[in-house]
Amino acid sequence: MIVVLSGGVGGARLCAGLMQVFAPDEMLIVVNNGDDFDHWGLRVCPDLDTVMYTLSGRVDEQQGWGVRQETWQVLEAVVAAGGEGWFRIGDGDLATHLIRTEQLRAGRSLSSVTQALMHTHGIRHQVVPSTDDHHRSLVLTDAGLLDFQTYFVRRRCEPRLLGLQMDSRAADGGPARPAQAWAAAMMRQVDAVLVCPSNPILSIQPMLTLLGVRDWLRRRSFPVLAVSPFIGGGAIKGPAAKIFGECGLETSVRGLAGWYEGLVDGWLVDSNDAEEVRTLAGLGFQARVANTWLDSDERRRGVAGALKEWLRDGVALAPGREGGRIAVDRT
Amino acid sequence: MIVVLSGGVGGARLCAGLMQVFAPDEMLIVVNNGDDFDHWGLRVCPDLDTVMYTLSGRVDEQQGWGVRQETWQVLEAVVAAGGEGWFRIGDGDLATHLIRTEQLRAGRSLSSVTQALMHTHGIRHQVVPSTDDHHRSLVLTDAGLLDFQTYFVRRRCEPRLLGLQMDSRAADGGPARPAQAWAAAMMRQVDAVLVCPSNPILSIQPMLTLLGVRDWLRRRSFPVLAVSPFIGGGAIKGPAAKIFGECGLETSVRGLAGWYEGLVDGWLVDSNDAEEVRTLAGLGFQARVANTWLDSDERRRGVAGALKEWLRDGVALAPGREGGRIAVDRT
Repeated sequence: MIVVLSGGVGGARLCAGLMQVFAPDEMLIVVNNGDDFDHWGLRVCPDLDTVMYTLSGRVDEQQGWGVRQETWQVLEAVVAAGGEGWFRIGDGDLATHLIRTEQLRAGRSLSSVTQALMHTHGIRHQVVPSTDDHHRSLVLTDAGLLDFQTYFVRRRCEPRLLGLQMDSRAADGGPARPAQAWAAAMMRQVDAVLVCPSNPILSIQPMLTLLGVRDWLRRRSFPVLAVSPFIGGGAIKGPAAKIFGECGLETSVRGLAGWYEGLVDGWLVDSNDAEEVRTLAGLGFQARVANTWLDSDERRRGVAGALKEWLRDGVALAPGREGGRIAVDRT
Repeated sequence: MIVVLSGGVGGARLCAGLMQVFAPDEMLIVVNNGDDFDHWGLRVCPDLDTVMYTLSGRVDEQQGWGVRQETWQVLEAVVAAGGEGWFRIGDGDLATHLIRTEQLRAGRSLSSVTQALMHTHGIRHQVVPSTDDHHRSLVLTDAGLLDFQTYFVRRRCEPRLLGLQMDSRAADGGPARPAQAWAAAMMRQVDAVLVCPSNPILSIQPMLTLLGVRDWLRRRSFPVLAVSPFIGGGAIKGPAAKIFGECGLETSVRGLAGWYEGLVDGWLVDSNDAEEVRTLAGLGFQARVANTWLDSDERRRGVAGALKEWLRDGVALAPGREGGRIAVDRT
């Protein structure tokens, strides 16, 4: 069983490749839902939906999220009636939020609702939210502590990021826990964990803060492979480079390797960054190169295939994985 | 102060006329909300919305409800995702339900939310739901006890109606009460009550069952004028004639006068039913004729003007208004 940790667009695109090289019963896709929020009274789960639309082929490939040939009738009507329009929900996408919200209000878990939605979209691979508990990312910035989507969409990531904080609790008042399917995988033998080229701080970190996840990774006997979200010192998409800079981190695989200290054994880096392989080797990390630009079905399958091949070849565990406090704790 | 009791399409159309002959501070429009229901997790208030869209000129005049040039993107997407499509919510209309539901969930009353929505639609006359309490119409039929919209939309009123029952309770467990603005009007001096040509059983009866409404009408010192929803023995629109037949009532103004026993002083009947005026006079009711086909702005204003003129001329209270149990109780 491969556990895949995925965030938004980059994660979804890699998952679309992984789906082609791993069978449904070989892979569990865990999707960040720290950026879920309520808008127009509906539960919106941007990363889960990006994965769903991408895996089902419904996605708007141009922008990377939302559905293709989307219309905006309701948004226009809501704005005309004085409602909020800064978070743009299209009509096709809205149907997802309506169905999800109604089922959540009826008492179903997000995992269960997600399973049903994925099934409706013809997705046979298992996709789960990282948690069914309340677990919301708050962004500490020089403009104050902002709700995630206020920071990410409304303010376009313009405020300087100082750190991420989780507003997080289980129904019993305890810490938020991984969703049941993920927790079950943690208990069983896992063959590998794959970390998608998603924003390490905004998308991956919220999942690492769930109860027991760090310990599970630190004590692992399975390899963790990660695909770098950076190419040539910049992010392929999104604000990862800006944010890394604000956190005083180098926007390179070396910077990433430091940030993921002890959590990642092998790095798949873009062919353009081949020289990084030597740097990483010097730090004791394994690395391979591939064309990690995930802009076509073929390339996605290529990257997924490279990861699968690497796992087949064997991956040694990285140095420092039993190290102390990991960088993730800094925020 | 004139209190107008309104239901769906016929009521909304008369209100559009009344709006032209009575100033905003002269009239309170009370709208049935016994047929409110939750669909796609949203609160839908069909009669309130029909009044809102009609008074604001947004209505689809052809069908009498919903908004003009409506689109159905979300409905298509919901149905494609396995959701329910029997109650057709258009995209423009959906925006109303989203805004309403979000505000209700934030703790605002339906009266307050309705006021805001009407304001957004540029409506200066006061429009209130009949009640802010839980007050849902259930239809007892030969196919069982059905939710109102299941009976009305999903089953197209095909089952034989045996009676209406209210699933009704205030938050404190007591009986549902008229909304605050209506209750306040009841306390003050009311100049007249106007009953719209709405379905007497499906639209008007739910309002009459609210706490204190029958007593208020029975003990009145103000006149009640009603516009007949029947023309030539049939309903102008909707299932009123079928339902009256199923209840063993005559589909005529005489049948109506009997059903509204003691509650209505004067009947405005269509010019085609001029002979009914004599019948009603024989029963001690006053009646006038007008062209009650409310299919144009001009005709709506005409009917409204006829009612206003009648009130100015004076209306004697009907016989039997202090009578015992009224027909409304039969169901």
